[in-house]
Formats: sequence, structure tokens, C-alpha cells
Amino acid sequence: MSFVTCQISISLDGFVAGPNQSLENPIGEGGMKLHQWLFTTASWREQQGLQGGARTADSDVVDDVSRNIGAFIMGRKMFGGGDGPWSEQWKGWWGDDPPYHVPVFVLTHHARKPLAMQGGTTFNFVTDGIHSALDQARATALSQNVVIAGGASTVQQYLAAGLLDELYLHIAPVVLGAGERLLENVGEPRLEPVEVVASPAVTHIRYRIAN
Amino acid sequence: MSFVTCQISISLDGFVAGPNQSLENPIGEGGMKLHQWLFTTASWREQQGLQGGARTADSDVVDDVSRNIGAFIMGRKMFGGGDGPWSEQWKGWWGDDPPYHVPVFVLTHHARKPLAMQGGTTFNFVTDGIHSALDQARATALSQNVVIAGGASTVQQYLAAGLLDELYLHIAPVVLGAGERLLENVGEPRLEPVEVVASPAVTHIRYRIAN
Repeated sequence: MSFVTCQISISLDGFVAGPNQSLENPIGEGGMKLHQWLFTTASWREQQGLQGGARTADSDVVDDVSRNIGAFIMGRKMFGGGDGPWSEQWKGWWGDDPPYHVPVFVLTHHARKPLAMQGGTTFNFVTDGIHSALDQARATALSQNVVIAGGASTVQQYLAAGLLDELYLHIAPVVLGAGERLLENVGEPRLEPVEVVASPAVTHIRYRIAN
Repeated sequence: MSFVTCQISISLDGFVAGPNQSLENPIGEGGMKLHQWLFTTASWREQQGLQGGARTADSDVVDDVSRNIGAFIMGRKMFGGGDGPWSEQWKGWWGDDPPYHVPVFVLTHHARKPLAMQGGTTFNFVTDGIHSALDQARATALSQNVVIAGGASTVQQYLAAGLLDELYLHIAPVVLGAGERLLENVGEPRLEPVEVVASPAVTHIRYRIAN
């Protein structure tokens, strides 16, 4: 059965987005600081069709978390902002060729036909909850991983429900002071750090979760 | 001049003490979970005069942070609870032979004569603020380190004032959900992870701070 994982950049004070998130700035003020480590990696730049970047331990982590993904699950805000219903013309934040390339299951309250994008990404809209979305994602992913893409609230729901097998945190050496916290309302998950990768830019800690 | 450092155990959600701290339970509900990694180390057990424990990477970290200390600074609650004034009979939480063995500077609003304990610890009570306490600690420590022992509020004050050179976090794989946070009201310190030590019990990250 699919392994269910989540990998996310987080500030040292626990935020995965800065304050005052908006349609114009969905990751909030200062939120981009969480991802600076990523933008300098050769692997991420290649994925975006960009030149340059460095083949560092951080770049290897990007390769690692990009492999063997059968499906994604994300919250409605991560797909397209707001609470919907979206117009049929609105195809989300991610452009014509979103960086997923597999089926994506979007948690929403508003039914909508699947949206096939370029490059293999299909957005499927799930209105009957997190368990249903996971069942559908597993059925698609088969032996590959299901990735909980975010945002914080979606990760929290899967973690609190005991459905997450792994949480891979990229801890940026940044204090945001305010914003959206990841580890709230998640109960008391039993975590074990099983892998740590360190660089001057970020510390990656992979936690296995005993459910 | 003395290097000013702080090493502290912290939950994955950012707490250094659990909720409902009291005189009976100064580290709050669940707070002991932050220190489980420590109690199993040979180095800590030796320091306490106990048998056993394991010579692991975690134990080496304990040795490491125990070396070359010339003075400690702590808040009044960490010395003895409450806000004072304490009676002259009250000698704090730490027993007749406190685990410091060097001068300790206690931030308080209530003047008191220095309190010489067994084993080399002397508690000095400082009523004129964090800069004064640091000046006195530096004068004592000479080329050795000054350690900000805690609690959270004291660490926050030194960090916010740009007086901390290093923050060494022991990140326990524990979600407390509530309690006392470390990294609040500290501004935007510029941190760089310079050393990471990993074990299945805890992840140690040493941050240098550019002030």
C-alpha cells in the first residue's frame, strides 16, 4: 500500500507561511525565506527548466523527495486560493504545466469535473473528506508514494487522523515571528527522526510516524 | 572576550516547557519529555553521580556543552520560582550542591547577598538588568564561555538584545501542543547552522548568531 509522506519547509519557530497571507502573497510576508535553500539547488532549478544551481546535499534531498510519487493531495487554498466555488475558467495557481505531473486530489467543498493540465497533472476535486481523498490517491498511486502537498491545515488533518507515515521537515534557520504554524491541533504523534541531512542553509529531518 | 552561548531542549513545535507550569512542576505538563534523551546518556548520569547510561553521540553532546564554562546567567524562576523576594533561608531549586560549580548570575528585582553553595556554585543576584549580569559574568568567566541557562524569557532577552553568540538546540521528536515557547519576541536573529548531531532520540543543531 502507498506510503503517505509530507515534506515541507518550516521556520525555526514553526511557521510554514508568513503572516498576512493573501491572494497576492499566498505564502505570507517573509514566507519566501523558508524556501531560499531550495532555489539554489541544481535539482530544483532543473525541475523548473532553469540553468545553474549547485549539486549539494540539499540538491540531493530535492531529488530524493521528488522520486516515486504516485499522487498528491492538497488543500483548496493551495490549488487555487479562497474557498471556491471557482469559475470553470480558473485553473489554479500552477500555470498550464503544473509541477506535479501525476494526479492531484484537491480537498474542497465544491464539486468540479477533473481538470487535465499539460505535463501529466490532473486536478481531481474531492468533496467527501480526507479519507476519501486518500483512498482515491492510493488507488492511483499503487505502490508509489502519496504526498500530502499542503497547506498546513491539510497536513494537520492527515497527521491528526493518524494517516501520515512520514514527515520530512526542512528547517530553515529563520525566525518569522508570526504566520501559519504547521504543528498545531495534531494531537501527540509518535515521531522518530530516521534521517538528518545538514547544510549551512537548512537542516533536513525525516521523521517516521508510528500510527 | 567570553563567548555567550545557550543550549536548550525544545519540542518540535517550539516549546521549552509544557503548559501549566507551577512551583510543583516547574517545567510544565509533558515538559519532561523534552529531556528524556538526556537522562539516558552516560555523561549526564556521571555528572549526577549515577551509574549506567550509554556513550552515544548524545552523550558526547552533553560532554561538549559541559566544557569550558566560566559562568551561568539565569532568570529568577529558574533559580527559585516565583518573583521573590525570597526568604534568606530559600536556597533555590538546586539542592546544597547545585550542578553549576561556577558563579551563577540570577536576574531578579530583589537584591540579595551572594549565596555560596557546595561544589563551587555561587548564586549572585543581579538587579540592574541583563547587560549588567553579562558584564559581571564575563568578568568572572574571562576566556571561558558564559552560558545563558534559561528559562525562555531570559534567553529571549539576550537573543533580542543581540548578546547571544550561539544557540544550541536539542530538538526532541515530541509535540507538546502548548507551553512556553522559546523563539518569541526575539526579532529576526541571523542564524547559521554550523553543526548537526543526530540520533534516534533527538536532533542537535548548533546555530551561530551574527550580531
